[in-house]
Amino acid sequence: MAKNEARRNILADAGIAVLASEGSRGLTHRAIDERAGVPIGTASNYFRSRDALIAGLFERIGVRLGPTSEDLATRAAEKPSRALFAGYMRDIVRRLSTEREVTLALFELRLESARRPELAETMAAWQRAAFEGDIAFNQAAGLPGGRREIALFHYALDGLLLDRLTSPIDPDTPTDDVVDALVNGLLPEI
Amino acid sequence: MAKNEARRNILADAGIAVLASEGSRGLTHRAIDERAGVPIGTASNYFRSRDALIAGLFERIGVRLGPTSEDLATRAAEKPSRALFAGYMRDIVRRLSTEREVTLALFELRLESARRPELAETMAAWQRAAFEGDIAFNQAAGLPGGRREIALFHYALDGLLLDRLTSPIDPDTPTDDVVDALVNGLLPEI
Repeated sequence: MAKNEARRNILADAGIAVLASEGSRGLTHRAIDERAGVPIGTASNYFRSRDALIAGLFERIGVRLGPTSEDLATRAAEKPSRALFAGYMRDIVRRLSTEREVTLALFELRLESARRPELAETMAAWQRAAFEGDIAFNQAAGLPGGRREIALFHYALDGLLLDRLTSPIDPDTPTDDVVDALVNGLLPEI
Repeated sequence: MAKNEARRNILADAGIAVLASEGSRGLTHRAIDERAGVPIGTASNYFRSRDALIAGLFERIGVRLGPTSEDLATRAAEKPSRALFAGYMRDIVRRLSTEREVTLALFELRLESARRPELAETMAAWQRAAFEGDIAFNQAAGLPGGRREIALFHYALDGLLLDRLTSPIDPDTPTDDVVDALVNGLLPEI
């Protein structure tokens, strides 16, 4: 990795941490410099405007939440089934839970997109690209469920993560059991 | 309504509006005074600390999101059925969508509860009381679905509202159709 790219990632990770811990109003170039422990002015050098910064954060969030090649290789060897779909959903929820800061940062950005029309456009494009990608992936993998069902899983898993990462209403039920109950109810027969 | 109570509600509503438009970091007594157009110091007079303010906001949020007596009277005349459960869910989603600011303010508070342990306790108590109330209401009304299913509806409807109030991934599907699809999949037979 080029030195510049490594530093860019460090700055983006600091931005994600600031978003998660301070909310979107706390997200400034200066707060990122302080969080990353770099000279004041560094973040502005890499991300020239707030829009460029937000675009950089989205890019980094996508990388940090994306499936590992090991995850994909393991699942790709399995035959398409409801159980395989449930496995993918469990993987996604595990990644979002483990990358707690990234998931919280994304929720912050979604709420900010309700306040700032220029962010709403970026956010909508990012969300819809991810949504279309999920539909295409599901179809290519020969899994049950189309646009309608994938949308339902987006809603349910977002709400589940928001609950589990903040104040869980039903903490005694394991997260994987919730995912399985959603798949049992919402995924059509293969 | 006593004059004091009316003014307290105006201040709480201003606090909800500040939360929705500025995020939790923007929520100060001064911002509330400015939003409500009252002399600086008024909000501090009614809510002596940040904790008292947050408690006052929760109280007001509960009132603004609660079912109207008309809603309840209409539904109470119906026989328990899956369609009646779906009707209640549609009512909830309609109220949360109409009271957009209140719902966004609640999301802000949930994210802040992930950062502030003292708020996390208040939030957890509030959320769990609402959850237990929903379970008890459902049982008393003779409707299908217990703790497990009510939790699934909490997750799915929270995620649906977060999506619809920010950047919808699938805006062409009417919200009521999403609610019906969730009920069809997640509610057990009566």
